[in-house]
Amino acid sequence: MTKPFADRWFAAVEKKRAPVCVGIDPVLERLPTSLGDDPIEAIDAYCRGVLEAVVDHVPAVKPQLACFERYGSGGYAIYERIVRQAHAMGLLVIADAKRGDIGTSSAHYAAGLLRDADALTINTYLGADGIQPFVDEAAAQGAGLFALVRTSNPGGDALQRLRLADGRAVADAVADIVVESGAGHVGASGYSLLGAVVGATQSADAIALRKRMPQQLFLVPGYGAQGGTAEDVRACFHPDGRGAIITASRSVIYAYANRDDPDWTDAVAMAAAKLNEEVAGVLR
Amino acid sequence: MTKPFADRWFAAVEKKRAPVCVGIDPVLERLPTSLGDDPIEAIDAYCRGVLEAVVDHVPAVKPQLACFERYGSGGYAIYERIVRQAHAMGLLVIADAKRGDIGTSSAHYAAGLLRDADALTINTYLGADGIQPFVDEAAAQGAGLFALVRTSNPGGDALQRLRLADGRAVADAVADIVVESGAGHVGASGYSLLGAVVGATQSADAIALRKRMPQQLFLVPGYGAQGGTAEDVRACFHPDGRGAIITASRSVIYAYANRDDPDWTDAVAMAAAKLNEEVAGVLR
Repeated sequence: MTKPFADRWFAAVEKKRAPVCVGIDPVLERLPTSLGDDPIEAIDAYCRGVLEAVVDHVPAVKPQLACFERYGSGGYAIYERIVRQAHAMGLLVIADAKRGDIGTSSAHYAAGLLRDADALTINTYLGADGIQPFVDEAAAQGAGLFALVRTSNPGGDALQRLRLADGRAVADAVADIVVESGAGHVGASGYSLLGAVVGATQSADAIALRKRMPQQLFLVPGYGAQGGTAEDVRACFHPDGRGAIITASRSVIYAYANRDDPDWTDAVAMAAAKLNEEVAGVLR
Repeated sequence: MTKPFADRWFAAVEKKRAPVCVGIDPVLERLPTSLGDDPIEAIDAYCRGVLEAVVDHVPAVKPQLACFERYGSGGYAIYERIVRQAHAMGLLVIADAKRGDIGTSSAHYAAGLLRDADALTINTYLGADGIQPFVDEAAAQGAGLFALVRTSNPGGDALQRLRLADGRAVADAVADIVVESGAGHVGASGYSLLGAVVGATQSADAIALRKRMPQQLFLVPGYGAQGGTAEDVRACFHPDGRGAIITASRSVIYAYANRDDPDWTDAVAMAAAKLNEEVAGVLR
């Protein structure tokens, strides 16, 4: 029986010194030219280079499924290989898939994606009966889930900040559904297998959501390229310095000065080390 | 340049006599035993059998991506083959993927999924800037989109029916985002390339949403197995009998009496014919 994701996460953070994660979002037009023009081969080689560059600095990586599905079944096969390689290197893998559907279909997504990855992002617009199959599968596999609650993009406000008649924001209502759906699955770490995605550019919201979802591990995208600051990051943690996974994608994986840089993996490694130090510094 | 999806849809409805669609949601445990135990081979053979059984009775099919992703890249490859076969048979294909992300990732999903399919279901929880890349790609490809507004599952109410301070329901707010995002892309048919998913089990809501989104083509799941009635179906159409795509999945594709039925494709064909006649009858 695999240990719950949160337990594995905290053990990995001990080893790597900071609760950080690198998002792997390969965009062909931004990859080093030395990797060639064939999308499948270039993305495959790039992802392997990124994993080797970041492995000493992060407990986990977060591949963005969209960047792989862009190339159909061939792209999906790269994703599967990258997950295997990350696991062989001792990295945890959070599949950023944002899947959500009704019961049977959610069960199929959960079975497919949690066979490969350690954790998965999900979308809760379809409500608790769309979440439950993900929770059941994650419980069986010792996997983690992160439900979209508050996103870091500007357009997220249009729906997520709308005020309900009962005084809550829409994101608060989603948070309450997440708390309820995850309540029966709190492990030894004190955290539920069902966590939440909370953007790093919304510190006022993050403080309120941190209180609203005390047992939810937060997956926090938006650090670096999307403009999240140290203060935004701090707001996502409990006073004991636990409770959030800070994720940077573009600011790390495209840290090289230009596409012709022969030492691009060094630049990625340095950016991952910097992410680690910055977040560790915020929590000291 | 491919014609807009809505134009192609209405032309196809003329030929097939009713605005209906069959959802292709292959679940291994329900497939005819004659197709064997290997998931990839059984699902491939099953989907080909279903396409042949329904082609005379429906303008479009709607494969559920979850059922294919369940089997990783190998399953995804079946999905790609099924789309090609459906196109070769003159069927339109609506990919039921419910994807939604921020800008770059939405663009990747759109580019990948709309290369194969004619239309795609999307999730709008991330707001307009997450929708825009889908709209841009669909406009370039002559493709259609259906944004999740009101779903047919019981749990959908928990979020979608919540009342906002301004009197709207959450689903109304999503509908307004959809109308705004789709406004610049209304074709000769009078319909926007950005349509809406509206469940067939919510006729009161469907009547209100039909008025709220006059230029949105509705994709209506939930007919048959999920309990949608003729009255629920009627509510999704404009008085001229246009404006909705009625979808049935389990009630058609699992219409055979048991898994040992050697004539299972006949049962599927009969159920597809019945779906066609029932919906045509409602609209007469």
